[in-house]
Amino acid sequence: MIKVAIMGHGTVGSGVYEVFDMNADKIAKTVGEPVEVKYVLDLRDFSSLPYGNKFVTDFSVIENDPEVTVVAEVMGGVGAAYQFTKRCLEAGKSVCTSNKELVATKGEELLKIAEEHGVNYMFEASVGGGIPVIRPMLQCLAANEFNEICGILNGTTNYILTQMIHNGVTFADALKQAQLNGYAEKDPTADIEGHDACRKICILSDLAYGDKFDPDQVSCEGITKITLEDVANADKLGCVIKLLGRSVRCEDGTAYAYVAPHLIHKESPLAAVEDVFNAIMIDGNATGEVMFYGKGAGKLATASAVVADMLDSIEHKDNRRRIFWGDGSKNLLRPLDTLQSAWYVRFKGAQKDVEELLPVESLTEPAEGVFVVQTRKLSTAEMNAAAEKLKACGEVRAAMRIL
Amino acid sequence: MIKVAIMGHGTVGSGVYEVFDMNADKIAKTVGEPVEVKYVLDLRDFSSLPYGNKFVTDFSVIENDPEVTVVAEVMGGVGAAYQFTKRCLEAGKSVCTSNKELVATKGEELLKIAEEHGVNYMFEASVGGGIPVIRPMLQCLAANEFNEICGILNGTTNYILTQMIHNGVTFADALKQAQLNGYAEKDPTADIEGHDACRKICILSDLAYGDKFDPDQVSCEGITKITLEDVANADKLGCVIKLLGRSVRCEDGTAYAYVAPHLIHKESPLAAVEDVFNAIMIDGNATGEVMFYGKGAGKLATASAVVADMLDSIEHKDNRRRIFWGDGSKNLLRPLDTLQSAWYVRFKGAQKDVEELLPVESLTEPAEGVFVVQTRKLSTAEMNAAAEKLKACGEVRAAMRIL
Repeated sequence: MIKVAIMGHGTVGSGVYEVFDMNADKIAKTVGEPVEVKYVLDLRDFSSLPYGNKFVTDFSVIENDPEVTVVAEVMGGVGAAYQFTKRCLEAGKSVCTSNKELVATKGEELLKIAEEHGVNYMFEASVGGGIPVIRPMLQCLAANEFNEICGILNGTTNYILTQMIHNGVTFADALKQAQLNGYAEKDPTADIEGHDACRKICILSDLAYGDKFDPDQVSCEGITKITLEDVANADKLGCVIKLLGRSVRCEDGTAYAYVAPHLIHKESPLAAVEDVFNAIMIDGNATGEVMFYGKGAGKLATASAVVADMLDSIEHKDNRRRIFWGDGSKNLLRPLDTLQSAWYVRFKGAQKDVEELLPVESLTEPAEGVFVVQTRKLSTAEMNAAAEKLKACGEVRAAMRIL
Repeated sequence: MIKVAIMGHGTVGSGVYEVFDMNADKIAKTVGEPVEVKYVLDLRDFSSLPYGNKFVTDFSVIENDPEVTVVAEVMGGVGAAYQFTKRCLEAGKSVCTSNKELVATKGEELLKIAEEHGVNYMFEASVGGGIPVIRPMLQCLAANEFNEICGILNGTTNYILTQMIHNGVTFADALKQAQLNGYAEKDPTADIEGHDACRKICILSDLAYGDKFDPDQVSCEGITKITLEDVANADKLGCVIKLLGRSVRCEDGTAYAYVAPHLIHKESPLAAVEDVFNAIMIDGNATGEVMFYGKGAGKLATASAVVADMLDSIEHKDNRRRIFWGDGSKNLLRPLDTLQSAWYVRFKGAQKDVEELLPVESLTEPAEGVFVVQTRKLSTAEMNAAAEKLKACGEVRAAMRIL
């Protein structure tokens, strides 16, 4: 009998218990013996639950129990979660988590501590919820150098954009709807401003390129400025608007990394990703483009990814997984200035100014004096310079990259 | 320095060498030391290649070299490939392959031999080419019971159907085009009759449900009867036609498994999978639906999956992967009779006969006396019985399940 513990009994934590309970037979078959959740750590009173006797409020009970070899950290945040994770690893216990904030900010340190103590720190659930992406990237695509990662990494914003695209709902109303449906927090900032997607593209970039990408240094733009006008214009260009986390490797080993809304052509498989679903496209130099799609959040989906990591830790307790993650000293993050993209621009002003300042691929005038331009490829620096000049002679109402 | 060998220097085999060569640094980093291809087994003369000195024609050179710990079997077929795989495993060498025919017919036996000798037999590349699917299914979704697997598993037929759907090309012409482009063999039977997809859905079902599914017993229908009329009718119903390999688990643990063309609603992510791309949708009881998408074939894509398995075998040489695969004695394959589906039927005859014999959901008459029916759900047995009766009073020109 293998003994494990769960730290945190919120949505994901209770889901982790449920998965162990619901799929006990399958799990026992996978690791070769039954797995028992010995403790659940939470300060709240859950004594009335059928497994109420498993609850503890004192972390040291888990820390000091040598029977417990693998722990799920599903508390969230970077306070107690960080301390407890560290202490578990130092006590020789593997830790598996869905806590993207902690992974993105302290992953490097925690991976190092795990290595020093011969245990695993695993975080499949921190990106894409229930979608397998980190392990496939590290293992199945291990023979590839990664050229590009591009993903719809946040379910809340994808739900809002889907409502805007298919039901003509404004951003403000779609956000309200998302909140009513439990897809968005009361304070939705982390989602709609792109911070959540930013943490995830940083984690993926860390793993793909082997050095730390700091979320605070990665350019991050959310979806709050997108209007139904932009949605309609995109449609006319054969595109939909999606919030993407993207990183692109350059020949010298540095990489662009950023979060921003993009126009995506409808033929792209990413364009078909709707509602709260997520998808991550990875371009390997041997395998080409592969995409992973599924529910990016949700109790059981996320929990099942945490449990899979726990089972993997159990199976490989004497054989640590190699995860490379530098300390950021390589400075791999490249400024966006030189990134080449085609752009969508909505401009109120004079046609001659747009034509003079932008390399126009196509131009329409959907309302009087309002021009929708699709540009040829230009660098971010060129685009920014042109936008400054356009602002001097009119109003740049929207500017987004076209993928 | 780790030493490996490649058996077969065809498309995939030369790709395996190329991946080891091209991504040598990445590979050395992944496994902790450089990996050298010591031998390439092929009867043909490749002495003029830069690595011509590595070629051997005598299998026993590989078999008897204790330095070689992992071997790629990329010869194809079930003759010499079977013998050599068996002898490698018996000699304590792990074998990694893209040979779906061998895996589907002898996988069970070879896995058993591998287990007895404490080595791995791995075959990620046998399904979906470069798309990670077997390992994600076994590891990332390890905490799930599988409800359903449904995939576009054959690139050749998907290319043909894409040509029919988007360019109005007939089946015969699209097949010719596929052959000209190198997407279809001179004898395209295995692809267009669904046998290739059948082997792959059997492999996935074996792994998902833990018992052998025999390709010879799995119902298999190809795409040769699909006409442009069907493609147009599907379009009017908001659908596209795709060849699917599908298996559905029932409550008693048995599973339906079959290959057949289906109508798929355009909103489904599977509908957006075009040309030679493949995608596999897996429904787990905790994680819900996840989909894996990418190139299902191609030299470097397939080779990179073989190499990833080889790296995994190197990293886990003392820790075999658990793969469960029964011998078929559980008889998990369930006859299709009771499988419930909505159907698309194209019938030439009298409207009253269709209405009498089928549970009509919608009916149109695109040409005089030709009726296109979308049925409500009915069982395969009921559908077959109705089709027999319809044939007595008219002509059933097409009948396909709607997903």
